[in-house]
Amino acid sequence: MNEVLVGRGEEMRKGVLTTEDLARQLADLKRQVENIKPGVDDRVSIIVFSGDLDKVLAAFVIATGAVAMGMEAVMFFTFWGTPVLRDPKKKAGGKDLMGKMFGFMLPKGRNAIKLSKMNMGGMGTSMMKSLMKKKNVASLDQMVEMAGELGVKIYICEMSMSLMGFKQGEFIDYPNLEYVGVATFLEQAKNSKVQLFI
Amino acid sequence: MNEVLVGRGEEMRKGVLTTEDLARQLADLKRQVENIKPGVDDRVSIIVFSGDLDKVLAAFVIATGAVAMGMEAVMFFTFWGTPVLRDPKKKAGGKDLMGKMFGFMLPKGRNAIKLSKMNMGGMGTSMMKSLMKKKNVASLDQMVEMAGELGVKIYICEMSMSLMGFKQGEFIDYPNLEYVGVATFLEQAKNSKVQLFI
Amino acid sequence: MNEVLVGRGEEMRKGVLTTEDLARQLADLKRQVENIKPGVDDRVSIIVFSGDLDKVLAAFVIATGAVAMGMEAVMFFTFWGTPVLRDPKKKAGGKDLMGKMFGFMLPKGRNAIKLSKMNMGGMGTSMMKSLMKKKNVASLDQMVEMAGELGVKIYICEMSMSLMGFKQGEFIDYPNLEYVGVATFLEQAKNSKVQLFI
Repeated sequence: MNEVLVGRGEEMRKGVLTTEDLARQLADLKRQVENIKPGVDDRVSIIVFSGDLDKVLAAFVIATGAVAMGMEAVMFFTFWGTPVLRDPKKKAGGKDLMGKMFGFMLPKGRNAIKLSKMNMGGMGTSMMKSLMKKKNVASLDQMVEMAGELGVKIYICEMSMSLMGFKQGEFIDYPNLEYVGVATFLEQAKNSKVQLFI
Repeated sequence: MNEVLVGRGEEMRKGVLTTEDLARQLADLKRQVENIKPGVDDRVSIIVFSGDLDKVLAAFVIATGAVAMGMEAVMFFTFWGTPVLRDPKKKAGGKDLMGKMFGFMLPKGRNAIKLSKMNMGGMGTSMMKSLMKKKNVASLDQMVEMAGELGVKIYICEMSMSLMGFKQGEFIDYPNLEYVGVATFLEQAKNSKVQLFI
Repeated sequence: MNEVLVGRGEEMRKGVLTTEDLARQLADLKRQVENIKPGVDDRVSIIVFSGDLDKVLAAFVIATGAVAMGMEAVMFFTFWGTPVLRDPKKKAGGKDLMGKMFGFMLPKGRNAIKLSKMNMGGMGTSMMKSLMKKKNVASLDQMVEMAGELGVKIYICEMSMSLMGFKQGEFIDYPNLEYVGVATFLEQAKNSKVQLFI
């Protein structure tokens, strides 16, 4: 009854409301306040759709930067991003013709990807790589290693794997790697502070 | 006065504060708590800027996936994304020369768009389509239909329409289609949990 | 002690809890409620990674649109986005060979950038520009000026500058320009309502 009175903000007669009643309402309210969530977790969620060297680098710079700032980071590799995580030393058997064709045509891992612009038959990409070395910018190899050590989570999109015929045995060794569907990613992304499609 | 006392956390003398006062404060506080908004609606807002088959597919996978998870989804088609929604069976008259040229050069709807990579004169795109069929991945046609049934909202950017000379009569029949400016989209996007530029 | 009683929602004996105790709890609770932050600032944070005319235009339309709606806007120019902000009239000395090469190959400012599609040797880009004029859509020059007047903040990525050999003296005059690292951007972005990677 007090609940109703207070809820409607109506006048209450003195003496009717005991301190015990008040305390109970306070407890209710406190529980309510404690259940208010800030709405977002301190996390960056990145969809790595493009498999271009420059964009993949940007994704890792952001992910590792976020973790360095005390945030969490999740990267969801899908479509052209998927082959970036192939390990060129691993081979997977049991592929159908299409899977073999895709396996042949798509880049074999992160050292085979190119710049999205000014690739110039590979010259631009080589130039950028040597430049990064000279300027002490971490290479993609170093970025991936750092990301693994920092705890950046990597998700590989199951639908893309199925489409392109990739097997789990073809991907890099990475401490926090999972094979998931878009729903799993969205579940994480929707409570993240930052979401990017790269 | 109690408001002030409580607000500053100062010591209160016993007896001055009645239970009635306390109840009033409780009611105020309760109202305050109820007005705290989680800050974001359970919605995914996607800007579909690129008209590439792979990216448009990704946008629809995310939008329909979000709705399947109980979220709302809004897609804002702009620039190269706009012609994806043309209905090839519809014709719009009254276009100026530029409008006719754009109408001719831009893809006539979702079945005329290509992969952003490995299109290889259309071969890559055809290969991807037949692969999707084989692997039971919904085609773009099916995705659009599903999105309509699930209640995914589609916005078409008015500025892009004006620039490219498109008329409202040229677009697909879709249950939740609106022609809006960037402000309308931003209004929705800013309170969404997830925003993506694809 | 009351704290504990209320926190656990346990039964309280009448008479043990005075109104003074209750008032103190109310004050505590009030402070707690006031400290709940909506979690996000009313800001749009955009990473301008692509240096294509269409995408840069989209970024400025969104940023200026957001400010017009009463939001703040921050644009972080990185990678191919960086040369878009070069001032073609300014020259920077002291560059090494690589810096000179990049300076030569990358577009000299916003009037030298091209459409991401249908550039057709520059014809598509010219066509789009004349079309924008005809349809009274602000040109990129006007957009940048407007953004400056509206208070859109522009960040230039220090890592990209270092990689491409750009000097601070080469960039446009703009009221709100800063040279920052990815951490500074992420700090702003993580509390923004909208984040986009363009």
